[in-house]
Amino acid sequence: MPDTRFNFTLEATDGRLAGRAGCLSTPHGEVRTPAFMPVGTAATVKGLLPEQLRAVGVEMVLANAYHLALRPGAELVEELGGLHEFMQWDGPILTDSGGFQVFSLAHRARIDDRQVTFQSHIDGDTIELSPERAIEIQEQLGADIIMCLDECPPHDVPRERLAEAVERTTRWAGRCREAHRREDQALFGIVQGGIDPELRERSVAGLLPLEFAGYAVGGLSVGEGPAAMYRALDVTVPMLPADRPRYLMGVGTPSDLVEAVARGIDLFDCVMPTRNGRNGMAFTSEGSVRIRNSRYRDDPKPLDARCACPVCCRFSRGYLRHLVIAGEVLGLVLLSWHNLAIFQQLMVELRQAIVEQRLDDYRTVHLARMAASV
Amino acid sequence: MPDTRFNFTLEATDGRLAGRAGCLSTPHGEVRTPAFMPVGTAATVKGLLPEQLRAVGVEMVLANAYHLALRPGAELVEELGGLHEFMQWDGPILTDSGGFQVFSLAHRARIDDRQVTFQSHIDGDTIELSPERAIEIQEQLGADIIMCLDECPPHDVPRERLAEAVERTTRWAGRCREAHRREDQALFGIVQGGIDPELRERSVAGLLPLEFAGYAVGGLSVGEGPAAMYRALDVTVPMLPADRPRYLMGVGTPSDLVEAVARGIDLFDCVMPTRNGRNGMAFTSEGSVRIRNSRYRDDPKPLDARCACPVCCRFSRGYLRHLVIAGEVLGLVLLSWHNLAIFQQLMVELRQAIVEQRLDDYRTVHLARMAASV
Repeated sequence: MPDTRFNFTLEATDGRLAGRAGCLSTPHGEVRTPAFMPVGTAATVKGLLPEQLRAVGVEMVLANAYHLALRPGAELVEELGGLHEFMQWDGPILTDSGGFQVFSLAHRARIDDRQVTFQSHIDGDTIELSPERAIEIQEQLGADIIMCLDECPPHDVPRERLAEAVERTTRWAGRCREAHRREDQALFGIVQGGIDPELRERSVAGLLPLEFAGYAVGGLSVGEGPAAMYRALDVTVPMLPADRPRYLMGVGTPSDLVEAVARGIDLFDCVMPTRNGRNGMAFTSEGSVRIRNSRYRDDPKPLDARCACPVCCRFSRGYLRHLVIAGEVLGLVLLSWHNLAIFQQLMVELRQAIVEQRLDDYRTVHLARMAASV
Repeated sequence: MPDTRFNFTLEATDGRLAGRAGCLSTPHGEVRTPAFMPVGTAATVKGLLPEQLRAVGVEMVLANAYHLALRPGAELVEELGGLHEFMQWDGPILTDSGGFQVFSLAHRARIDDRQVTFQSHIDGDTIELSPERAIEIQEQLGADIIMCLDECPPHDVPRERLAEAVERTTRWAGRCREAHRREDQALFGIVQGGIDPELRERSVAGLLPLEFAGYAVGGLSVGEGPAAMYRALDVTVPMLPADRPRYLMGVGTPSDLVEAVARGIDLFDCVMPTRNGRNGMAFTSEGSVRIRNSRYRDDPKPLDARCACPVCCRFSRGYLRHLVIAGEVLGLVLLSWHNLAIFQQLMVELRQAIVEQRLDDYRTVHLARMAASV
């Protein structure tokens, strides 16, 4: 890695599964892996303050270069001191390059080898995003870890299209590597190739010579279904260098996290805990709670009796239901907060299981519990 | 007062103005007066957690019997342990009786001497609210201080209508006194009479024999304008017993608070800090900041350089503007939080000025600063 302040140490590997426990050092502190990053799309994890993230064990957050470049603008964030100062999160930050968002959110994206041109989903402005510009934006934002610009096609495109995206992602990765200047930022490459084993292999082969500080698996959790995703991980992860952090982008459910950790993934991000929270859904150790359900009307119990988070320590399901039904902002804040606590707790448990060489047992118990709760 | 746990002690009176510094003891702790209560209409001060209220010095909050009776229902709140337990605020709470809301929010309110009948603004259900039922609801909710059911007509009704409302408010106050049972709750009477000195006198005369634990001035800040409101206070407050807390309902701007404290008011509530915060307006020591204004786009300064609140200690105007423009919930949370801090700080300063016998000077400086900032 380009900076001595970046370091990834493997502390334990599970005896039977590929799960690893490690520590990722960055200029803004350490992250114990496996780690889950809450999504702070627009430089805020929706509704939550930095101290509330810390209180449930969050060590690293993700922000989005696409959204921030559109609003308020990467130059402005830089002028106001960079992303850490701007959002007052003093821990590590990772920014996504915007590749995924360009293809999922923007209007009329046209791609050629030079760049992708699209219209902002906010005001319709025409915007050009090249690998060089994606790096420039992320250098302006100033996250600890930044991502290459990749092409992320829908999961059901013809194989030739998928192969084309792999080739372009590889060429763009080289240009990102070239453009990357700031030594206090680590650059990760992104493996594409959908659920096609051969294309995944081709993608990894193209990226390895570029010696990235870490490798992400992109293009999953885009509709292919969990079984296909796990198979794609089965073929992809073993090809990645063991001494670099591995990041599965945009994933996922608690069960997805367990399965991906068992396959050797170290980092995750997903909107699920906060987005589902805003929609009135709480994750619990016994399955999901849809808090609007009238059965919770007079329920004095916490969301999850086994959860020790600041929400479950105090508030009843009856109160939370009241807040959500009444459209009170505090309802979505509290559900998001609890859900993040559940995800963080899951990562702590997974890490512990790996250290104690019992990840396989943990997975079995977790899956049985999830199956019983459906 | 009915319970030895209730006590109101005057600690200082300003030498030149009627301002008083005191301490109101309740079963859930003490409140230093003059005090401002944030409004937690539906058992939540919108967007803020109990610890965030504490962090800016809030000692007592207001909740609304009308809203809570409609949703989730006073019986449910009681079943879930009462309002303190329900919303996890362990300090003093005051509930408004619902009189004001019935006349301002409900549909087709019809009043006779027995009760007021109206349709819920939420689902159109027909609801009957009598003085006895208003007390029952507030006993179920379990606040420390509860209010009599009053009739609060618009400020521009003919004098006979206003006189009628005064008479009815007096009769209803007697029935509330009669109905009130819980000794761990203090019952306050409400003076009506609009801006008519004689009607205010008649209202006070009717309430004094009922020996309430405290007296509220209602029917102000309903459109009569600040000058008329101050004149109404000039005639009303001196008639109230000096040894009981005086509560000006639904007021007001920082200048209103200064003027009312100078006239001997001890307690206030108002939605202004939180509602204006949600609308992107911040109170500061130098006047209001409308954070959407493009002048704050790249402003690295805090909302108020003189404010030491958890928002001003950390976040720039540029960041807050970004959050509000992007429709991020955290923006309204932070603006509401800061505004509450400003209101609490004002009360602390007023109290200090009274203790140090310099309220008149404080008022002069405050008004000059406000005038300069317009």
